[in-house]
Amino acid sequence: MNVKKMMDYFRGTPRNTASLAKERLQIIVSHERVATREGGVDFLPQLEQELLDVISKYMTIDREQVKVHLARDGDLSILELNVTLPDKAKTPAV
Amino acid sequence: MNVKKMMDYFRGTPRNTASLAKERLQIIVSHERVATREGGVDFLPQLEQELLDVISKYMTIDREQVKVHLARDGDLSILELNVTLPDKAKTPAV
Repeated sequence: MNVKKMMDYFRGTPRNTASLAKERLQIIVSHERVATREGGVDFLPQLEQELLDVISKYMTIDREQVKVHLARDGDLSILELNVTLPDKAKTPAV
Repeated sequence: MNVKKMMDYFRGTPRNTASLAKERLQIIVSHERVATREGGVDFLPQLEQELLDVISKYMTIDREQVKVHLARDGDLSILELNVTLPDKAKTPAV
């Protein structure tokens, strides 16, 4: 994927006024299955909690500030997590 | 983010001929820090292994088939993992 296009894409993500000065984290998982293959189970819904657990090791996440969106279109599934970080994020332990 | 735009975006990701019939997984983490705040440490490089560990619970991942890209532009960091899944993926244990 073109890096510049990706940067433009994420910078161009709409945000509301309240979050303008907020630190933000966005996680997108896209899973494209092969339609002809059996057993292509969609596991993205299960990932939400696990991804947040991983991120929580590095930052304090307010679960109320996490917006989750799951979209499906044929053999393509996309899980999107949008996290607005609290003003006082903990210092990463790394 | 507009769902249709996102679908088009991920479907439009270039892929080589060999991966045409392959199952694919793409993980993108974008972290937008607040430039004026101190302590905005970039932890995305540490996430690579942890994200793959989470995914490995659901699918068999060939680590040689994982392409990692980390991009930075000012206060925006983006970690991108592109995974081409082996033909014989294990059945998710869920």
